[in-house]
Amino acid sequence: MEEVKEIKILFLGDIVGSAGRKAVKDLLPELVKKYQPDFVVANGENAAGGYGLTEKVAEELFSYGIDVLTSGNHVWKKEFYPYLNKSERVIRPANYGEGAPGKGWTVYTKKELKLGVINLEGRIFMRPLLNPFLVGKKLALELKKETPFILVDFHAEATSEKIALGYFLDGIVSVVIGTHTHVQTSDARILPQNTGYITDVGMCGAVESIIGMKIDQALEMYLTMVPRKLEVEKTGKLKLEGAFVRLNQKGETIFIETFRVIS
Amino acid sequence: MEEVKEIKILFLGDIVGSAGRKAVKDLLPELVKKYQPDFVVANGENAAGGYGLTEKVAEELFSYGIDVLTSGNHVWKKEFYPYLNKSERVIRPANYGEGAPGKGWTVYTKKELKLGVINLEGRIFMRPLLNPFLVGKKLALELKKETPFILVDFHAEATSEKIALGYFLDGIVSVVIGTHTHVQTSDARILPQNTGYITDVGMCGAVESIIGMKIDQALEMYLTMVPRKLEVEKTGKLKLEGAFVRLNQKGETIFIETFRVIS
Amino acid sequence: MEEVKEIKILFLGDIVGSAGRKAVKDLLPELVKKYQPDFVVANGENAAGGYGLTEKVAEELFSYGIDVLTSGNHVWKKEFYPYLNKSERVIRPANYGEGAPGKGWTVYTKKELKLGVINLEGRIFMRPLLNPFLVGKKLALELKKETPFILVDFHAEATSEKIALGYFLDGIVSVVIGTHTHVQTSDARILPQNTGYITDVGMCGAVESIIGMKIDQALEMYLTMVPRKLEVEKTGKLKLEGAFVRLNQKGETIFIETFRVIS
Amino acid sequence: MEEVKEIKILFLGDIVGSAGRKAVKDLLPELVKKYQPDFVVANGENAAGGYGLTEKVAEELFSYGIDVLTSGNHVWKKEFYPYLNKSERVIRPANYGEGAPGKGWTVYTKKELKLGVINLEGRIFMRPLLNPFLVGKKLALELKKETPFILVDFHAEATSEKIALGYFLDGIVSVVIGTHTHVQTSDARILPQNTGYITDVGMCGAVESIIGMKIDQALEMYLTMVPRKLEVEKTGKLKLEGAFVRLNQKGETIFIETFRVIS
Ligand SMILES: [Fe+2]
Ligand SMILES: [Fe+2]
Ligand SMILES: [Fe+2]
Ligand SMILES: [Fe+2]
Ligand SMILES: [Fe+2]
Ligand SMILES: [Fe+2]
Ligand SMILES: [Fe+2]
Ligand SMILES: [Fe+2]
Repeated sequence: MEEVKEIKILFLGDIVGSAGRKAVKDLLPELVKKYQPDFVVANGENAAGGYGLTEKVAEELFSYGIDVLTSGNHVWKKEFYPYLNKSERVIRPANYGEGAPGKGWTVYTKKELKLGVINLEGRIFMRPLLNPFLVGKKLALELKKETPFILVDFHAEATSEKIALGYFLDGIVSVVIGTHTHVQTSDARILPQNTGYITDVGMCGAVESIIGMKIDQALEMYLTMVPRKLEVEKTGKLKLEGAFVRLNQKGETIFIETFRVIS
Repeated sequence: MEEVKEIKILFLGDIVGSAGRKAVKDLLPELVKKYQPDFVVANGENAAGGYGLTEKVAEELFSYGIDVLTSGNHVWKKEFYPYLNKSERVIRPANYGEGAPGKGWTVYTKKELKLGVINLEGRIFMRPLLNPFLVGKKLALELKKETPFILVDFHAEATSEKIALGYFLDGIVSVVIGTHTHVQTSDARILPQNTGYITDVGMCGAVESIIGMKIDQALEMYLTMVPRKLEVEKTGKLKLEGAFVRLNQKGETIFIETFRVIS
Repeated sequence: MEEVKEIKILFLGDIVGSAGRKAVKDLLPELVKKYQPDFVVANGENAAGGYGLTEKVAEELFSYGIDVLTSGNHVWKKEFYPYLNKSERVIRPANYGEGAPGKGWTVYTKKELKLGVINLEGRIFMRPLLNPFLVGKKLALELKKETPFILVDFHAEATSEKIALGYFLDGIVSVVIGTHTHVQTSDARILPQNTGYITDVGMCGAVESIIGMKIDQALEMYLTMVPRKLEVEKTGKLKLEGAFVRLNQKGETIFIETFRVIS
Repeated sequence: MEEVKEIKILFLGDIVGSAGRKAVKDLLPELVKKYQPDFVVANGENAAGGYGLTEKVAEELFSYGIDVLTSGNHVWKKEFYPYLNKSERVIRPANYGEGAPGKGWTVYTKKELKLGVINLEGRIFMRPLLNPFLVGKKLALELKKETPFILVDFHAEATSEKIALGYFLDGIVSVVIGTHTHVQTSDARILPQNTGYITDVGMCGAVESIIGMKIDQALEMYLTMVPRKLEVEKTGKLKLEGAFVRLNQKGETIFIETFRVIS
């Protein structure tokens, strides 16, 4: 690995249902052609019907060229636990308690390159998990023994918490990529200690939708406040949102930009 | 109705699953014998498997002598909507938006006595519904045209909000009974303007449980923070918790006390 | 007003403390020169020390060329109420209850052009206010009697709620601009019925900061979880973030783009 | 200490402002006379003006016969930190992060008897602190090396979390006493492994109030939803609420009951 000049990573935001998977299938090839990434990582927490993952859906996504799937608050579907427990390519937020199914990090090897991926979940407006700052730093320091290339998917709601984690891990990990809000932010940048950062990379799924779900159903919910399972919007144009990152051989981000491709 | 000296109401806290229904079946008769209530009202939001209601479960509870079922945040199961829409005996919190299934109040007639029942849901730590203070007062003033006997089930989390609604409706309704926390409070009293009040009447279900659910499953959740559907605890002793209220002919509370009966 | 071809609006995201005000003072002139806006609107909820507004600060911001100040959850400082009550240029979210100080909308006239501005606050992860969808639509229909040019500042946390409001008011108002997260999103667009939309325009203040506040203080809070008042970061580079919108004479958005200017 | 037959503890719920302190001053003597407690512990998180504690207020409460003050979410006032840091008699919830002022437990010695007191804060509807289950158990096992008498004040909102902690620490600590809601529950009991338990002991302060604060101010807040600092209600009758517990020499609860004394 000593001769590696740099590595390139493509990251896709939350893939929402079959529309999101179709977007990956249809649009990822052109991105791969353009960016020639060494690794493709994506957040799959909404890939199966908008809520969670299944074995079949995970395998489908791998078949499109995704190497590692991160996830988030929606990954906890009991029927997925056996797969989550054995997989080295699907991870869940690392800051759940001891005994939670699956694991919160992985080191994925491809053509002799090793990419460490850590998944964390925020606590502001979300579940009271273990402190993502402390868990994240500890894991990062461990993974750095194996590889200088470490990507963190911080699946969180509050911008304040996300930016704070960026600064906290600045100089420790390669890049901190935010997910969960399904809306891409315009703040992709390199932090002072050379860690790449973006608050949220957005989502993959229907363009005319409310974070991937049917507009009329979401509106009905906001008007009545009656809780309901929203269905994935499957019609109309599809989009693929994410970020492209280049790391130098020390694992520092030397380039980061976001993309949005529409079918 | 002019000759009515007073009316007596028995109210049962959240009935949790089959254990809660068994508690009603086994223990309600002795309470009825003791208190001779004119009306039996109960909160049924957890009666079907711990989450929500079904037509079958509602009918079962009516067969045990319950006259009216109130509910709460857990009532929103799609398959229950047709029944909720047509029933005059099962209500849901009134402060959901226009277009929500079912209705938030009822006037139930029994032996020429009319009892108005209003169901409201709190907003602190819960959904951002319509203001329960304003909705509650407006409904109360309407129902008072029909009957002086008005019971409010305020299904809410925060003690502050519950006590505030009690004072707000003091002198307007007969009694404000709190539900939702599944733990009985010791503050049953008559407010200065003669409205009966209690922060929470408790629940009906398993004694050795965590608010009616299996202890080990709830503990696992608190340790891992992985969300999961908890199962109703069905073994061991059962309890029936609630309040007994006497109203004078003006609809004022003249007596209120809580009870807890254990099988 | 019949001959108006189009109107141009410059909107600035949450101005954070003295750093944000300095950014406005230093950087607004070049934006005005570039865009030649008819109106400059800004969110001032953090303009005084990071929390709320004062009369002095509001007047200072007007002196820099801002026409109307919107606000949000942080505006409620008792000493500001007299000014808020009388001002036609500072508004607060319209969906607080009757009796709240100030008002939630204004029609500002400048060179015979009238701009209607409505301020709303989200309820997801925020206070349980009145329904911003219903309040917003009602106000919009009223203001449309006076002017076709209506800007909505939706001060909200959840992307889902913000996008939903955009679709809900699409075709009714001219533009829905999101604020509150202090991070600019990359989704500025024109919705199907010609309403301009962006989830969040970002903030005005220190670049190296956590949503405008001191990094070390915010990190200390995330590590200890001890609540504390954060201080505004005043050093380093400053940024001005916002959106520029052009409306046609029917009040439809015909162009929207975001900007970020750094000192 | 070998000859100790049993120890008796009096615990007072959240003391709210000057009214709460007056209630302690006026009503504690008769309770002490009745119960002859070896230790008096009280929650002081609202003792200074309804929010937090000050050195002066803490010393005042000690002068009335309170031995140890626990606290909660409202204790974090900067000016109190020096005192909190040095005191062995005022503690704050133990599950804040490393670096938080003060400490979360104490062992208080009186007439050769040692009482271990642990303070924990819930996370449901509250701050995302460290896991109170894990922190609480670890501390309990440490303190047991010094004394078999261990009282836990679990300052929490959700009944589910409180009951869960009770079962989790059952057999490990002497008694788990809930605080924070300011409303006394009627569920004081001895759990299967001989740990005493109550969901909430209530508060000390004005009877006609909303959890100790002025009724009209709280109602104004619930109607407008404008946030405001509420003032302590100081007029009318006062109450002292709490629990009395007897432990055997093994540190097991052999008796627990609640009290409410009104002036
Ligand atoms: Fe997602
Ligand atoms: Fe998510
Ligand atoms: Fe319930
Ligand atoms: Fe409930
Ligand atoms: Fe702000
Ligand atoms: Fe805000
Ligand atoms: Fe308190
Ligand atoms: Fe508290």
